[in-house]
Amino acid sequence: MVTTIKDIGEIELLNRLKKFMRSGQIDDDVAEITSYKKQLLINNDLLVENIHFSDKISNAKDIGWKCITTNVSDLICSGSDNIVSFTVGIVLPSSTNLTWVENLYEGMCEAIEIFGGEIIGGDCSSGAIKIISISAIGEKNEPRLHRGNALPGDCLVSTGNHGLSKLGLALLKSEDLPSDVQLSSELVQRAIQAHKRPYPAINALRALRETKPESLSWRAAGTDSSDGLLESVKGICKSSGCQAVLSKDSLPKDPDWPEHSNWNEWCLNGGEDYELVLSIPKKWARALIKEYKTAKIIGFTRKGKPNIFWDNLEEINTNQSEIFQHF
Amino acid sequence: MVTTIKDIGEIELLNRLKKFMRSGQIDDDVAEITSYKKQLLINNDLLVENIHFSDKISNAKDIGWKCITTNVSDLICSGSDNIVSFTVGIVLPSSTNLTWVENLYEGMCEAIEIFGGEIIGGDCSSGAIKIISISAIGEKNEPRLHRGNALPGDCLVSTGNHGLSKLGLALLKSEDLPSDVQLSSELVQRAIQAHKRPYPAINALRALRETKPESLSWRAAGTDSSDGLLESVKGICKSSGCQAVLSKDSLPKDPDWPEHSNWNEWCLNGGEDYELVLSIPKKWARALIKEYKTAKIIGFTRKGKPNIFWDNLEEINTNQSEIFQHF
Repeated sequence: MVTTIKDIGEIELLNRLKKFMRSGQIDDDVAEITSYKKQLLINNDLLVENIHFSDKISNAKDIGWKCITTNVSDLICSGSDNIVSFTVGIVLPSSTNLTWVENLYEGMCEAIEIFGGEIIGGDCSSGAIKIISISAIGEKNEPRLHRGNALPGDCLVSTGNHGLSKLGLALLKSEDLPSDVQLSSELVQRAIQAHKRPYPAINALRALRETKPESLSWRAAGTDSSDGLLESVKGICKSSGCQAVLSKDSLPKDPDWPEHSNWNEWCLNGGEDYELVLSIPKKWARALIKEYKTAKIIGFTRKGKPNIFWDNLEEINTNQSEIFQHF
Repeated sequence: MVTTIKDIGEIELLNRLKKFMRSGQIDDDVAEITSYKKQLLINNDLLVENIHFSDKISNAKDIGWKCITTNVSDLICSGSDNIVSFTVGIVLPSSTNLTWVENLYEGMCEAIEIFGGEIIGGDCSSGAIKIISISAIGEKNEPRLHRGNALPGDCLVSTGNHGLSKLGLALLKSEDLPSDVQLSSELVQRAIQAHKRPYPAINALRALRETKPESLSWRAAGTDSSDGLLESVKGICKSSGCQAVLSKDSLPKDPDWPEHSNWNEWCLNGGEDYELVLSIPKKWARALIKEYKTAKIIGFTRKGKPNIFWDNLEEINTNQSEIFQHF
């Protein structure tokens, strides 16, 4: 017989979850943040069932992994790679299986093992749908990346390929692909992995830090591409007040990605990619792509009203990039 | 015509909410925590529609106030009264009125004006029900209150009266009261105020700090009574491994509270009271109640298996105190 969280009650549930958290956290309502020598950054992310995740597509461990990595990615794209702690609030229907909750936390801990930090507290409540609310705290570090830090004449850099997560989701849901084409089994595998187990760009951030030419300041613009590549570029343009020109021949695509304009569309507006999209001086960009093999210069910035163009001067339709706006 | 958040979309919604947040927070996914000289405490609280709040009983401003004060109370009952910042995650059905959301934030800001801090970031998502997830950060301070800090021989102190919020809720919902009795209009007013606009015990905490006898260390046990007076005492007993003896004649009741055992029950197990329940040495307790007029010694702790007794040695049934366990 399946044990639900209603069967065991809240106190016993919290007892079972103790092993996933810093010890001594259950007795009190607040937790101490360990790091206090450096300035701290905090983010908050909500994952709502059937909007951000679904049991039909991902198991609880994968969902737990994704909850943590989504938050970690927000810290990384701000320049923070020393992850300090997480608080986890969960809303669960009382019919939720205990095993599901334990697997969720196991998936979280698998990610924490790799990216750092610890779960230091949280809250739980019953509710009609599953919701996971995480606040992640990391130490501030250089470069402190902001969307608004770009200057005209920067190179735009993507630290990895885009569109894989959307392809993975489509494959998992047996949905139509952009065109009928035979995909390599390696691409299929990479796409499903990208969707189920996204890997935030912690190594790319460290390479960025290590490759800064001494003659340059730490000024760098960046964001992650969790809302899609084009939306990231758009965000940088809007916050920095400049234009972007993208090279049609330099789209950051998987080596096995089919050649087709509809497939390009998925690369540009796939979403749930967790790469860094950066706007940095050319010298730094060149040093980075030399050191970090999946990084690629995808275009440049220039003066002008925020907008995005192809290098043939054609304006890029960015309406599609807003598909991740809720409501 | 009513404007919903679907009508204006997420970007415009965030624009409208900008004025409630620290400036410059919208452009990036993370926020900087201002304080970094002191060690920080963090809590996380989820408020779920129809479980923790309902539009039928409270307006959006009151709900906003309560979201913040619930979190502030968690920090205060840990000894932190210098509130630094809040992150606010909200899940909203897309049919939610824009005015409701703006009023929610106004209510939050009314509380922030009094208790300190600022909204530094957050997240929003659509969802079938309204959920508000807040993480509050405050500076660590002495005494660092824990439930597990009590020692046998301590005095148990309540910093204010209990049961008012439950009475207020019953009045607002026109539910049955513990007995048929005429209530004073002042009690009615205090009860409704306690339910709609709970006031965390920040002044009591400061009085506690100021009245510590020099001869004593900062060792003090404490919690807030958001889950009810008896549940607070029980939590201290369980975490500290001791027993509590409560004085039947010293229940912390409103001066106009009816004399009746059913009414005592509401005082003990009302919940959503935001007073401090403390376990501290007698000398400190006496100094505190002298200085802080609504504080009252309600009993004492002693060695023994965690349990609660009346001073006539009758064991207190604490099953009722678990009504705030979810699931």
